[in-house]
Amino acid sequence: MLMEVQIAAAKINKYAVSESGDTLEAVERPNGGVSVVLADGQTSGRGAKAISMLVVRKVISLLAEGVRDGAAARAASDSLYTEKQGKVRCTLNIVSVDLQTGTVVLTRNNPSPFFVAHDEQVDCISAPSSPIGISLNVRPVISELQLESGLMIAVFTDGLVHAGERNGRPMDVCTSLKAMLEDQEPSPQEIADALLAEAMTLDENRPVDDISVMVLKVLPHRGDDVRRMAIRLPIGVE
Amino acid sequence: MLMEVQIAAAKINKYAVSESGDTLEAVERPNGGVSVVLADGQTSGRGAKAISMLVVRKVISLLAEGVRDGAAARAASDSLYTEKQGKVRCTLNIVSVDLQTGTVVLTRNNPSPFFVAHDEQVDCISAPSSPIGISLNVRPVISELQLESGLMIAVFTDGLVHAGERNGRPMDVCTSLKAMLEDQEPSPQEIADALLAEAMTLDENRPVDDISVMVLKVLPHRGDDVRRMAIRLPIGVE
Repeated sequence: MLMEVQIAAAKINKYAVSESGDTLEAVERPNGGVSVVLADGQTSGRGAKAISMLVVRKVISLLAEGVRDGAAARAASDSLYTEKQGKVRCTLNIVSVDLQTGTVVLTRNNPSPFFVAHDEQVDCISAPSSPIGISLNVRPVISELQLESGLMIAVFTDGLVHAGERNGRPMDVCTSLKAMLEDQEPSPQEIADALLAEAMTLDENRPVDDISVMVLKVLPHRGDDVRRMAIRLPIGVE
Repeated sequence: MLMEVQIAAAKINKYAVSESGDTLEAVERPNGGVSVVLADGQTSGRGAKAISMLVVRKVISLLAEGVRDGAAARAASDSLYTEKQGKVRCTLNIVSVDLQTGTVVLTRNNPSPFFVAHDEQVDCISAPSSPIGISLNVRPVISELQLESGLMIAVFTDGLVHAGERNGRPMDVCTSLKAMLEDQEPSPQEIADALLAEAMTLDENRPVDDISVMVLKVLPHRGDDVRRMAIRLPIGVE
């Protein structure tokens, strides 16, 4: 069956902090497909960025060698634990489109839940899951879903779920997603942008934490066979 | 000055070959900015893919550690030469938005030229440049351009420049780019897609080689401060 996988991400820094502590990168899988890795280092700014980059680099280099996602997450955890003597935590999500198995593999070391939708049916996956780095033998929670048209997955860092809490109006990601999916087929970028925009509004445009949102959608194959990637990077240069 | 960097890529496989020998990946630079790495391994299919992935992985892991682009390219060359005993060549382009220096750094080990435009002025950069892997001490050709609004860069693998040669109607990338830039501000994705579509047409929709096109554009900052990434991956699953 011909399909098209679309993945989109949107990221913003904590207010008045020049560097995001979140890192999100993609890597092609050696046996076919793509993996997106998202990590959120403890605290914010430069220190947190160094942690999340370390974790993402470790995971990506292992995935590129053909290491399985769960093993890559465990290796990153042990590596961070060793490097920082168990003092620094980091959340980790890996979303893999695995063409070898025809599945989407979701690997999670993150107390924040993620959402899976089949058409308009939205499920919140919130099985208990610990961040990596603060103890040995931390195991990720792994979910494997059939790669099929209509599937949507939304993964994010805790800046999204904590948005608005300061003002007593916490974000309800599930309700927002349901409302969006009842509309006319929003693109993954529209979904990611809308979730981020809602969080920003709840935080009165001064995000209390770094926020990263990643949305994957599987659609029927409509267009050509061209693979595409796009990056947009707003910058300030002196 | 506030700006926005937009990067887009479009890739297609050689006709009737399931795997592209080209690899294109992006990595965040540890001191700010982003690098896109594009490699084209000798021949096509699975063997070429293994080569180009090896080269891209090597370059990306070095860039992520803060190694300078030229040094990363030389390291990838020596590494490929050693691994394949000088028998396998691979082209390599690195396009880096370096926020530390406020420049775009273009590193090239590729006989194919690339194009730089400032608004509608298009220049072809074709200084002689060798692929990596077939001798020691291969040096990249490096160009450094000021990061400023109106800058556009188009980099591609040789599948684009050789398109149409079989039919005696070779592609003229420069003329195509000039025609596009006279239009109303095409997005990088529109430029990449249009170049690829033209090559496909000249190859009668049966590309003679893998083709990858990457376009970078620097625009005035218009929207929000959100960083975005999007991937589109057409797939066939049994």
